[in-house]
Amino acid sequence: MDRYKRRVAQSATMYDRLKGFRDFYPEEMAARRAMIDTLEATAQQYGFREVGTPALERTAMYVDKSGEAIVDELYAFEDDGGRGVALTPELTPTVARMVVAKQQALAKPIKWFSTRPFWRYEEPQQGRFREFYQLNADIFGSDDPTADAEILAYAADALSGLGLTAEDFEFRLSHRDILGGLLESMAGDVDTRAAIRAVDKSEKIERAEYHDLLVDAGLTRDQAMEFETLLETGDLEELLAFAETERVRSAVENLRAVLSAAEDYGVREYITLSLETARGLDYYTGVVFECFDSTGDVSRAVFGGGRYDDLIESFGGQSMPAVGVAPGLAPLSLLLQRAGVWPEEALETDYYVLQIGDTQSEAARIVRDLREAGHVVETDVSDRSFGAQLEYADSINARTVVIVGEQDLEEDQVTLKNMASGDQLQVPVETFPGKNPEPRLTDYE
Amino acid sequence: MDRYKRRVAQSATMYDRLKGFRDFYPEEMAARRAMIDTLEATAQQYGFREVGTPALERTAMYVDKSGEAIVDELYAFEDDGGRGVALTPELTPTVARMVVAKQQALAKPIKWFSTRPFWRYEEPQQGRFREFYQLNADIFGSDDPTADAEILAYAADALSGLGLTAEDFEFRLSHRDILGGLLESMAGDVDTRAAIRAVDKSEKIERAEYHDLLVDAGLTRDQAMEFETLLETGDLEELLAFAETERVRSAVENLRAVLSAAEDYGVREYITLSLETARGLDYYTGVVFECFDSTGDVSRAVFGGGRYDDLIESFGGQSMPAVGVAPGLAPLSLLLQRAGVWPEEALETDYYVLQIGDTQSEAARIVRDLREAGHVVETDVSDRSFGAQLEYADSINARTVVIVGEQDLEEDQVTLKNMASGDQLQVPVETFPGKNPEPRLTDYE
Repeated sequence: MDRYKRRVAQSATMYDRLKGFRDFYPEEMAARRAMIDTLEATAQQYGFREVGTPALERTAMYVDKSGEAIVDELYAFEDDGGRGVALTPELTPTVARMVVAKQQALAKPIKWFSTRPFWRYEEPQQGRFREFYQLNADIFGSDDPTADAEILAYAADALSGLGLTAEDFEFRLSHRDILGGLLESMAGDVDTRAAIRAVDKSEKIERAEYHDLLVDAGLTRDQAMEFETLLETGDLEELLAFAETERVRSAVENLRAVLSAAEDYGVREYITLSLETARGLDYYTGVVFECFDSTGDVSRAVFGGGRYDDLIESFGGQSMPAVGVAPGLAPLSLLLQRAGVWPEEALETDYYVLQIGDTQSEAARIVRDLREAGHVVETDVSDRSFGAQLEYADSINARTVVIVGEQDLEEDQVTLKNMASGDQLQVPVETFPGKNPEPRLTDYE
Repeated sequence: MDRYKRRVAQSATMYDRLKGFRDFYPEEMAARRAMIDTLEATAQQYGFREVGTPALERTAMYVDKSGEAIVDELYAFEDDGGRGVALTPELTPTVARMVVAKQQALAKPIKWFSTRPFWRYEEPQQGRFREFYQLNADIFGSDDPTADAEILAYAADALSGLGLTAEDFEFRLSHRDILGGLLESMAGDVDTRAAIRAVDKSEKIERAEYHDLLVDAGLTRDQAMEFETLLETGDLEELLAFAETERVRSAVENLRAVLSAAEDYGVREYITLSLETARGLDYYTGVVFECFDSTGDVSRAVFGGGRYDDLIESFGGQSMPAVGVAPGLAPLSLLLQRAGVWPEEALETDYYVLQIGDTQSEAARIVRDLREAGHVVETDVSDRSFGAQLEYADSINARTVVIVGEQDLEEDQVTLKNMASGDQLQVPVETFPGKNPEPRLTDYE
């Protein structure tokens, strides 16, 4: 990355990339693609089905839910038809719109995933960009704790598939109704949303500021301290003893059922109860969780998820529960790099077919045969020298070079060169590649 | 598709999708994904390397090349930082910017591909949307005819991989310098770009209008008719006899070399010489081609490509030749549907694990084992009845249903149900799924 940045700085392009936007060159993209493939293959094994969604939506869809202030974070503008439109800052409102549009026809539960970019006009920082990519996986139509557990299990399995272990990450699990119920039991007129936003910020701000925010939300200063202590201990029994309301009791029961189902799915070990986990978004209604780097080197939440049972109805649909998770590729990359399991940033090439003299027609036949067998194959398209071709073959990490030379061909031979060992061997051209699915030099020795 | 449209019309969503933008639900997305996978796998076999590119660029990058008029077709706006930005209407300027930024460091030839959406504010019509998807494949750094042939071979192989044959499509091949050289030989002060744009439009407009455009570009009316006749006959010898300039001679030679290399790559049969093929974009400099439906049912060009040797230099880089192709998914879908090779719009599920009674922990173990073996597996996350679960398993096209019932489990059995035949069989739970990579009912019979 740093190497790339220096190169960019040295060159004299007439147009610069926009701040907070990224170009991915092939080596880095290969590693990202490996990461995306694992996240998507795991989603498919869980029965999440891919959907395709637009990059633009009506700005009103975000403003109605989040207020005019959201516009400052949006890439929002008026299109040539006078519509107020915005580059999608997240997927959830879009999939909610799609669910509502066909709510009757869709088989339930609806389990969808997709990987794509989103856009927010924010100040870029480590792991945060104005154009950022996420996989979103959501289940609509089940309020059962098993659905929450399946979302957690999916996320844990995807991270395990990427090479992370229980030593590397933890899911901090909480429940919006525990926070809400606790606040309610302390002060009837508390602004729950404001208080929950304060909890979400608590790790990033000073303690005094945290208390101020809780007081602004309607708690007394003593209540704010008591609230903080209860969340810190995180003991569900103590919590129940303090606030034995129906809302808190049922939230605790739900949380325990989710943990039990997570146990069944073999992912309990990744989950820690953490009542201080709140998630910033207003639409969450039940279980919420955030994934953290166990070492703390990646300091912010890697990603999060939770239950949002009211959103579909608020979009004009019939009431339908929902739960989801959205791993962001940039913070996840940081975690994989920290844990030493970031995929190799390297090109892979099975064969380079090197041409010497007028051998294009035989070389092209070999190229065709090898590609038909599914291999990654390059050949000369620039009429270059032997040395230049071999250097290029090396730069693309070709495993085997097939040298097709005029003299060799007169004897009906081609030469195979193992690029790792440097060994080479002449083989009869009519047997290459032949029926062997992946002919290598060693097959002929 | 029509079925979906009706459903959308019936439902009462609060937010509508933008005109010219599309939602892809899982069944349709599965078919699109199969198409994209084939296009990308073929690109990888050809040694094209995936790159990732931003959705937004500076508006100036497009206006400088194409004039202020292009802004009408762009989703262009000012961001919160006062930058003039535009949703990318095509990939070529972006990859040109990326090449220039690291031109020294990149190994040549540079062979890149990517699949992603683009945006143009145009009137939607059959196969054309405001948000549209393309795979772009480009080779930078070779002016050899083999590079043009490799682009053609890639496109032909990708279409063959999708199930199309030489009966289904043809590539109409031409050369910008034949058109340009011919015009030049007829009238020294002709506006070549305007005349080439007229050729590009000629199939869509009346003959008189075509002639008018050529006259506007600087030909006499007689010359316009002669020019039209020469292009129609498409005979290279006749052309050389008429305009034996160095420019035309060298273009004809280049075109013949491309055809010869295409022969070597086994794709000559897909290519027709067609001097009336021009491509609308100004930046093409050499070979240009368009893919057409052989039956004409898909009336417009499915996609096109060509050589653009001057673009990199015009972006501030060192002079570097380039050639590329960009299959658009929407018109390509139309061709695949017309030819009867559109992939099935259906979900695929290997196993549904059905739970009866309190069997979640054993069911979850089976689900885990099957997913670990790489299968697509769903299970109950809604605490539903036997009938509801079986109906759901059917709706997701589950091949095998594993029934985990309390009574069965007391006898250490589960029941496998083949959903196609309806046959079912009890098998010992401890052997399921066992070591068999894909256990089916027939394995136990």
